Amino acid sequence: MSTGLPSASTALFTDRYELTMLSASLGDGTAARDCVFEVFARNLPLGRRYGVVAGLGRLVEALRDFRFGERELAWLSDGGVVDEATLSWLADYRFSGEIDAYPEGELYFPGSPIMTVRAPFGEGVLLETLVLSVLNHDSAVASAAARMVSAANGRRLIEMGSRRTHEESALAASRAAYLAGFHSTSNLECGRRYGIPTTGTSAHAFTLLHDDEATAFRSQLAVLGTGTTLLVDTYDIARGIETAVAVAGPELGAIRIDSGDVGVLARQARDQLDRLGATGTKIVVSGDLDEYSIAALRAEPVDAYGVGTSVVTGSGAPAAGMVYKLVEVEGRPVEKRSAHKTSRGGGKAALRRHRPTGTATEEVVFPTAGPVPELGPHDRLLQRPVWRDGGPVADAPTLEDGRERLRRALVSVPWEGLTLSRGEPAIPTVFA
Amino acid sequence: MSTGLPSASTALFTDRYELTMLSASLGDGTAARDCVFEVFARNLPLGRRYGVVAGLGRLVEALRDFRFGERELAWLSDGGVVDEATLSWLADYRFSGEIDAYPEGELYFPGSPIMTVRAPFGEGVLLETLVLSVLNHDSAVASAAARMVSAANGRRLIEMGSRRTHEESALAASRAAYLAGFHSTSNLECGRRYGIPTTGTSAHAFTLLHDDEATAFRSQLAVLGTGTTLLVDTYDIARGIETAVAVAGPELGAIRIDSGDVGVLARQARDQLDRLGATGTKIVVSGDLDEYSIAALRAEPVDAYGVGTSVVTGSGAPAAGMVYKLVEVEGRPVEKRSAHKTSRGGGKAALRRHRPTGTATEEVVFPTAGPVPELGPHDRLLQRPVWRDGGPVADAPTLEDGRERLRRALVSVPWEGLTLSRGEPAIPTVFA
Repeated sequence: MSTGLPSASTALFTDRYELTMLSASLGDGTAARDCVFEVFARNLPLGRRYGVVAGLGRLVEALRDFRFGERELAWLSDGGVVDEATLSWLADYRFSGEIDAYPEGELYFPGSPIMTVRAPFGEGVLLETLVLSVLNHDSAVASAAARMVSAANGRRLIEMGSRRTHEESALAASRAAYLAGFHSTSNLECGRRYGIPTTGTSAHAFTLLHDDEATAFRSQLAVLGTGTTLLVDTYDIARGIETAVAVAGPELGAIRIDSGDVGVLARQARDQLDRLGATGTKIVVSGDLDEYSIAALRAEPVDAYGVGTSVVTGSGAPAAGMVYKLVEVEGRPVEKRSAHKTSRGGGKAALRRHRPTGTATEEVVFPTAGPVPELGPHDRLLQRPVWRDGGPVADAPTLEDGRERLRRALVSVPWEGLTLSRGEPAIPTVFA
Repeated sequence: MSTGLPSASTALFTDRYELTMLSASLGDGTAARDCVFEVFARNLPLGRRYGVVAGLGRLVEALRDFRFGERELAWLSDGGVVDEATLSWLADYRFSGEIDAYPEGELYFPGSPIMTVRAPFGEGVLLETLVLSVLNHDSAVASAAARMVSAANGRRLIEMGSRRTHEESALAASRAAYLAGFHSTSNLECGRRYGIPTTGTSAHAFTLLHDDEATAFRSQLAVLGTGTTLLVDTYDIARGIETAVAVAGPELGAIRIDSGDVGVLARQARDQLDRLGATGTKIVVSGDLDEYSIAALRAEPVDAYGVGTSVVTGSGAPAAGMVYKLVEVEGRPVEKRSAHKTSRGGGKAALRRHRPTGTATEEVVFPTAGPVPELGPHDRLLQRPVWRDGGPVADAPTLEDGRERLRRALVSVPWEGLTLSRGEPAIPTVFA
């Protein structure tokens, strides 16, 4: 029944109701109606001040592979999921529509039209699950990671959370953390797949394996050189540091402390290292850090943070809460109208207004059916073309582009928007 | 640089420090030391009363594919991650050790030796990240899902959270939810890969696509038959129900309500359906449900729950907090000894004691170096062989076996352990 291996097609990363809706709409002819679908978030999670768009690069790759091949069709047919007419339609399926979206690294706010999909209903309805899986996961991680980067205030952040999340999401999480400004990842596959710098030295197991700490340190230094990071908290930290400098010399690259009150321990370690002449030896701390503990360590002599669980799980908000909604049918705006979870009909785009100083003031969401509101010299349109003529647009932004975009966007956020405390979005969303 | 496609090898789902430790230990000869690694959780998250082991079936598949092929070796070599001697060792890498573990669907508690890996250091150290990624993710989902199953008290649960998590974790999450007793998933690939029943009918988009609700319902009924579920809350719920029964007749399978105060709405809907003669029509509710809201709906006339975000993200605890620790080197127990995060050295196994009534009373963790404690007639050993002689053991339990194991295990939990409130683990862990 199963090989456990991932499929090369992404077409079945789809909720069954998308295929039953397709089938019914092929039956009554509405599958061909021109539609507009929109991805947006009703709220930012947990009183956050901004969200960060991430995952678009991965999504484009996944959309390329969204084809119903023999294996997928055979399974749908055997399971009686859809009828013959639908199977034959799926066999020829190629997404012929257009996609515009906020690029990776762009900020988003409640109601931002993060993605707009224009396509016949049958083509657009199939993409809901895949689009949301990628954007909700990656944006959740990037949104949390960006707050950690702000909290670290220029110090280095190492993502080391692979072990705390599904093995494939680990890669996407590392990628999103890097987009948000993390410096490196522990995950080798992430390095291979996305070209992100990888780092890693040793665990407590390596010290425990050896007859004593000095032997373990010597062994590591022989392979990784004096610039390496020695983990000093397996037994007694002060003795660990003493041994580390004795064995490596004062040119030792760094020590890592992974447990205890890392603020106090970092101060003691700094004093001890300085006394031992290892004034250039850096201090890396890790162990259940999140944006709050990183901020709390600002006054301590810490050079880098290793962050695991909190970044890969979105620090309390593991999904970004984005939805994929039908907003327009053959030029007519449509919207759900019963109580709760209402939406605004009609295809939309957005621009962000800024003061002459560069500070953002508001997100303006406007109907694409009308004129584009006037753009001031410091304002900019937020959506970019992503998919045209059956494929991704050329010169799509790279991961590095997204990293730079976010760096600049965060500079534009009003200062209250960069605080870690809960509150209103950093700028209001205005519907024109 | 990247195709975006998953790799067939799982060998790089590995943190870089595992390879640097391997390299250094090959250099000094300690890579060959016989070691025991143990997977355990220091605590259950969020004051939960029990954890559910999940992911072992997936892990065994992933371990089969844990081979360093040409592509992986070339990347490690090009990036200078390890030296030539290590590359050549990796090219021949086959895990030759033994693995025992709690089977899927078994409960675990703080300190339970969920998995024991016996292998030379170099072989065992490489598995840390992959083992933890799979077990931490899947067990987090299964642990949350099991509480929802208890809260639903026999009513059906449909997992529909794929859009709220990474596209590959969605499959693992659906699988874990099914293990925990969910009845079906919305995710088609999960159906294909694991044989789990899939369900799905339609979204609000399908109603909005059509000129009116009646036309949309008729179209769906034409394809899916009268037994289908009609979504009635796009416009006005009472009118939606009236239209649904008018169009489908009183034999309509079910209606779904996805927004609003679903408890109140379910009662009103039940009354209305009964008045319309649709006394057999079931009521499905969905929309940000978790174990607490499911429990709160016990007194309402709800027949099935659709659960999304909360189940696939572990309902507040997206990672199970399991760690992979070296506990024994050449027969000598080892343990980290600095403040915080200590561990207990030595290879261990466990048994669970039960009263004659079948109620569990304690988890007994004992050193494998000593004798096995006496087993009463109702007690049982918890670890099972998973990997022997270079591969998985024959007759490994199936997903259905795990589902049944959990069903039985939950019957054995003392009643306080099944409450949703925060508190102590359902049974204490005793270290013999």
